[in-house]
Amino acid sequence: MQDHASPKVTLPHAKTIPLLVTVAVGLIIWFLPPPEGVAIEAWHLLAIFVATIVGIILKPLPMGAIAMLGIATTALTATLNIQDALSGFGNSTIWLIVVAFFISRGFIKTGLGIRIAYLFMLLLGKKSLGVAYGLIAADLVLAPAIPSNTARGGGVIYPVLASIAKAYGSEPDETTSRKIGAFLTLASFQGLVITGAMFLTAMAANPLAAQLAGEQGVNITWSSWATAAIVPGVLSLLAVPFLIYRIFPPEIKKTPVAVKLAQDKLNEMGCMKLSEWIMLGAFVSLLILWISGEMIGINATVTGLTGLGILLLSGVLTWKDVLDEKGAWDTLVWFAALVMMASYLNELGLISWFSELISGMVGDQVWISAFLILSLVYFYSHYFFASNTAHVSSMYAPFLAVAIAVGTPPVVAALVLAFFSNLFSSMTHYGTGPAPVYFGYGYVQMNDWWRIGLIISVVNIIIWLGIGGMWWKVLGLW
Amino acid sequence: MQDHASPKVTLPHAKTIPLLVTVAVGLIIWFLPPPEGVAIEAWHLLAIFVATIVGIILKPLPMGAIAMLGIATTALTATLNIQDALSGFGNSTIWLIVVAFFISRGFIKTGLGIRIAYLFMLLLGKKSLGVAYGLIAADLVLAPAIPSNTARGGGVIYPVLASIAKAYGSEPDETTSRKIGAFLTLASFQGLVITGAMFLTAMAANPLAAQLAGEQGVNITWSSWATAAIVPGVLSLLAVPFLIYRIFPPEIKKTPVAVKLAQDKLNEMGCMKLSEWIMLGAFVSLLILWISGEMIGINATVTGLTGLGILLLSGVLTWKDVLDEKGAWDTLVWFAALVMMASYLNELGLISWFSELISGMVGDQVWISAFLILSLVYFYSHYFFASNTAHVSSMYAPFLAVAIAVGTPPVVAALVLAFFSNLFSSMTHYGTGPAPVYFGYGYVQMNDWWRIGLIISVVNIIIWLGIGGMWWKVLGLW
Repeated sequence: MQDHASPKVTLPHAKTIPLLVTVAVGLIIWFLPPPEGVAIEAWHLLAIFVATIVGIILKPLPMGAIAMLGIATTALTATLNIQDALSGFGNSTIWLIVVAFFISRGFIKTGLGIRIAYLFMLLLGKKSLGVAYGLIAADLVLAPAIPSNTARGGGVIYPVLASIAKAYGSEPDETTSRKIGAFLTLASFQGLVITGAMFLTAMAANPLAAQLAGEQGVNITWSSWATAAIVPGVLSLLAVPFLIYRIFPPEIKKTPVAVKLAQDKLNEMGCMKLSEWIMLGAFVSLLILWISGEMIGINATVTGLTGLGILLLSGVLTWKDVLDEKGAWDTLVWFAALVMMASYLNELGLISWFSELISGMVGDQVWISAFLILSLVYFYSHYFFASNTAHVSSMYAPFLAVAIAVGTPPVVAALVLAFFSNLFSSMTHYGTGPAPVYFGYGYVQMNDWWRIGLIISVVNIIIWLGIGGMWWKVLGLW
Repeated sequence: MQDHASPKVTLPHAKTIPLLVTVAVGLIIWFLPPPEGVAIEAWHLLAIFVATIVGIILKPLPMGAIAMLGIATTALTATLNIQDALSGFGNSTIWLIVVAFFISRGFIKTGLGIRIAYLFMLLLGKKSLGVAYGLIAADLVLAPAIPSNTARGGGVIYPVLASIAKAYGSEPDETTSRKIGAFLTLASFQGLVITGAMFLTAMAANPLAAQLAGEQGVNITWSSWATAAIVPGVLSLLAVPFLIYRIFPPEIKKTPVAVKLAQDKLNEMGCMKLSEWIMLGAFVSLLILWISGEMIGINATVTGLTGLGILLLSGVLTWKDVLDEKGAWDTLVWFAALVMMASYLNELGLISWFSELISGMVGDQVWISAFLILSLVYFYSHYFFASNTAHVSSMYAPFLAVAIAVGTPPVVAALVLAFFSNLFSSMTHYGTGPAPVYFGYGYVQMNDWWRIGLIISVVNIIIWLGIGGMWWKVLGLW
């Protein structure tokens, strides 16, 4: 029986100034005359799209609500009919990421994720640098099936990290944080940034980048992404913790207690439960099918749906778990809005108009220098963003169009910008979901975070463009 | 910090026998040779569709999980490509109901729903029959924007009902239940059944019926549904409580305390809060646009999205409320699966093949008697169903096809079957969402529930086919 007394509802009004700016930007573009060669519907859709992006950046309301309002505005202004305005919800790339959100719940629910992390501690945890590599190895193993880097970091890796730091008496305070906690926090965070770049399903905005590339005729599959990323990714994962160990060393170098702790935790967990075995089997099947999917003709989303089906049939996940996975439904909505707008902007000719405009302007250039500048601007503009998704949705498509227009090989341009869409979050304590979480535990001071983040951004760029560039040459991508 | 000790996960395995039956049905149909004139893909999709329906009825897993497995199977077997298999998620009828779920949360959250119910008590509550009409009036007012009859009954109406029953010392026991609680429970439940039939957005499976009718070329809009239902609906709402009052009378006839109680509750609530005013404004706007939408060319889903937008912008609903509304996400999934399958069965020619087959068999009949038998079989087969959705998704489309084949005017056939898809749930204590809820409170014995339910089913059929038939003649529907 519910209480009848009406609870006082305080209205959490949308933040006024950000809302006014968002609406004003939309209205100004809407009422400007479209440039020659741009249809009026394309221009109106652009106005709604830009307003949506501004709203996602300024956050008068949460991203999902802004996206829903964007869809409503598109339909209400008859810029698109309702069926087209809702078309994003049936997009198969979106459902790949939504399904991956559901599947990732299984790692956390069954305890398999934590078990994997402690297994790596057992193997690598003798020294503090080994602990860092162990945490990153667990992160790397889980990354293909946990698209929320916040869930991967905050839900699986960080608890293990914290238990080891505390075992060494390293607390988030001035005197003990540098013992080991600060080092592990930074190393693990920078690891998350890199693992996110390595798989299409390792970060929520990756499929958005792939989808936007697809709109411009560049096809990126799960396996082509992973193949291109594996060499620079592994190198970065090896180099970055070592670099942090050098420039921001932990006071404690040897960590026998970490191994002991891992052993104790694993003993406490006992044997693998049936649910963990099923989860493991489903995960391995997913990986095999994602890797080989292109060859045998099974779409990545179909694979994901099948994996989810196995988890549901076996009861590892219940339907309630699925309905409770709010991150998935949130992602469905914002993703559907952005993909719908981007795809109709393309269909209405705006992207090709923009590309031709740029091509006409740049003329004969050496694409390498032009693309280098473009990609660096793309990278370092992330100082101004509080979310990978906001950055990708606002800048990825136009930067890709320009890159292709100046003559960059399209696949390379699309992949570099996609990888950078993860790597650029190394720099600040607010630039990606897990950053404020990791920073918030208090082990690392802000000046250290930013200083080391900047150094690592340079290292990552050198590895990914330098070694990566050679690897992509070997792969024949350019 | 989360606990690392892995919790014991007991696997809530799918129920084995129902699962085996579901799969077996699918496999048998799959491997039978298709009848002449039916393409193999259509036949395979039929096999998956029938298995999905059997699964929804036998419930080896919850409906949403079955639907998700149906989508996965469709794509995995390459019966449809992944983009087509996911196409249901972008369907605008589905989003009308999903958005209505979100909006309905506003009535419960702001307390406006309960306030409306007590206002009707104040107006009509002097006698026990008046209390019943008051509860039904509140239900009728809220029905257009609360598509979950379970939420409408259990979340808004029943709490008011129970407070009045308890004020008169009527508890769910042998000695006091018949004082007033049993009468009000039955009257309110039967009211819910009828109000559900009156608006496209008053019951979750209504848009499914409309969508399935659309597949067969019969266009039912929000306003055409409401117009056709208003006359028989209001008559039923007037007749049924009176009938229950006669054959299942409450011991208490006069209820001054109900008026007093309503007055006290309303005093306690105080003036309308700002959030209630906004909710009221949004609701009235929705109703006006839904009613007039056809004339002014605004689609019902666009109206719904706009209403949701107003509630989000004003903060009456937060984005978290939206993500928390699990019924909406559940509905999105099962609805998307069923609509996708039904629409491709149609596109692949199965519906037209079936219609032609039936037309050839029935020849020249008087359609009235044939349709009467059809619709009665449709109605009373609900004794075998535990959900309106299961019944509609399995029987609506073929019965409509047969009805049209024997010569029934298509709009009449579609509407009657759609109305019956609500009215048939008067009969049992398990036939629709709120039935087990209302029955579960224990005021009404099962034999009373079934006996009176059967009588009311006859009354409803007579009113809706008799008076309704005349009204539809006036409207020119046949």
